[in-house]
Parts: sequence; structure tokens; C-alpha cells
Amino acid sequence: MRVLGIDPGLRNLGWGVIEVSGTRIVHIANGICHSTPGTGDGDLAQRLCSLHSQLTEVLRTHAPDTAAVEHTFVNKDAVATLKLGQARGIALLVPAQFGLTVGEYAPNAVKKTVVGVGHAAKVQVDHMVRLHLPGVKIAGPDAADALAIAICHAHHCQSSGRLEAALRRAAG
Amino acid sequence: MRVLGIDPGLRNLGWGVIEVSGTRIVHIANGICHSTPGTGDGDLAQRLCSLHSQLTEVLRTHAPDTAAVEHTFVNKDAVATLKLGQARGIALLVPAQFGLTVGEYAPNAVKKTVVGVGHAAKVQVDHMVRLHLPGVKIAGPDAADALAIAICHAHHCQSSGRLEAALRRAAG
Repeated sequence: MRVLGIDPGLRNLGWGVIEVSGTRIVHIANGICHSTPGTGDGDLAQRLCSLHSQLTEVLRTHAPDTAAVEHTFVNKDAVATLKLGQARGIALLVPAQFGLTVGEYAPNAVKKTVVGVGHAAKVQVDHMVRLHLPGVKIAGPDAADALAIAICHAHHCQSSGRLEAALRRAAG
Repeated sequence: MRVLGIDPGLRNLGWGVIEVSGTRIVHIANGICHSTPGTGDGDLAQRLCSLHSQLTEVLRTHAPDTAAVEHTFVNKDAVATLKLGQARGIALLVPAQFGLTVGEYAPNAVKKTVVGVGHAAKVQVDHMVRLHLPGVKIAGPDAADALAIAICHAHHCQSSGRLEAALRRAAG
């Protein structure tokens, strides 16, 4: 089954798709949806619209069976939190529009699954993603995080038996 | 020209459509898009998807020429800010998907336009909206806020000459 992981962001929204079969994980694709700030009126709306189109294209192309989005780390900067929330809204919306269930994982849960400890450094996560998916060209740190989220979701689905349920749904 | 105002929220997303012709403002419709929390997996994604569908239906039905969304008041509660951000992402996305420019106004700018002072109480805004649009049945406080945003946007467009530009775009 195919698992899509998304690392939400307004400027850079990372995504990664893996194919999971038993304990075997195969890389399918990864990338970053970009939206650069302009100067015009309604700029933010246009950027969100662009992210929506790009992410929709990812789902059309790679047809994942399930998706997961990182549970945003709520920081002290309210303006940044709001911006991230808006991008996260798009990240959650698009898979739901394709009829997928969208899992949410806290960054520490992702790190714990991929690295083994909840407080791992970003570079360790990146390293372990590359170990899990040898030889894969990763589009950038946001794409690596997205692949880590996909790996975390795959593990979580398997351990809870939800992978089988999702496979049944995908087959039926 | 038709102006859509949106007051974003995850549980209650208020909307209001007015028709503006010179200094004359006529009410077209108002309402609230609801998304109630469930208990299932992917619940937030489903709620955002539902808001997207409902708001898309509003734009299909009432075909506004321009739209405006309230600039969210960033409060100290980061979790609430994130939730609001996600709903706001949908509120900005949908009009952009219809090719509309989306204006953004701070709550104080809306109050200043509709009531005359930036620090007016919510009840005053509601009262002035009813004065602007006599006899109109308003779906609730969120819909009243949305109509206030639409009135603010209409005034702002007129004073900056953008209404004519938008009209030309709508005509062309």
C-alpha cells in the first residue's frame, strides 16, 4: 500500500510517498511544493491555491492509499503559528478530498519511530530516512521530514492492524 | 458587483454576500458553514473537507466578484490560533480557486468602517450591520461578522477605485 507523508509549510511543503509491503519499504517519490510570497493583493490566498494545486497533482500522480501530516509544533510566535496553520489546512484538506484518512503525528512520535528516540536531532532523522531508503535522491530537508512521517505512519498502521483495514478498503 | 465576506472558524465559518451598486448596498444571502468534531481518525481533515465543500457551494450559488476574509486576531492560545489558521486556510483558498482576489482586513479596520470606531463592541457591529441591511434575517453572530467584512471590503474597494477595476475584470 502507498503511504503519503506531508510536512506542512507555507513556503516549502514537503511530501514523500513510500510503498509498504509487510516490513518492506520502497521509495516511490518525494518533493517540495513551493509558494513564494509576492506583493499583490490576495497574495496569501493565491499561495494557498498554488499549494492546493501542486499537492492535488501529487495525489493524482502517485495515488496513495493513506496519508499522514505532522502535528505542528505550536511555538511561541503566534504569527508563524497562524501561517503554518493555514498551510496545514491545505495539507489536511487535499488527501481528505481524495477520500483518504489522514493520520496526525507529533514530531516526537515521528522521531521515536524513525530514530528510536523522541528528542533526536533533525540531522539524525535525515540520516535514518536515508538508511531506510538507500540511494534515494531527497529533494530537501522538508521532503526528508515528509518521508519520515510516511515511515512513521506505515509503522503505526502495521502495529495497530489498520494497514490491513486500509488495504481492504483500497481493495474493496 | 457582488462581495463575499468570510469570518473564518473551524466549528462555525460565517459568510455573507452583498450586492454593491454605487453607494447602495443590498443583501443577497448569509449563512454559517458548520463542521462538528467527531471522534474518528482523520477527523480534522474531514472537517476541513466539509468546510471546503460548503464554502464552494456558497460561491457556486452566489457567484461573488470579489471576496474578503477577516485578518485573524492572533491570541495567546497557540492551539486555538493553529485551529483558526487551518480554517482560515480554507476560507482564503476557496475564493482563490474561483479566480477571485481575496482582501484581508483586521477586525479593527472592519469595526472602524462599519461602526466608525476601531474598538467597537461586537454588539455594536451587529447593530450597524442590521442598520445597513434593514429587515435581513441574519444566521448568527458569525454571519453578521461576515456581512460586516463584506461591507468593509465594498467601502475599501470603492474608496481606492478598485471596485471599478474589479468590475472591469468581471465584465471582461
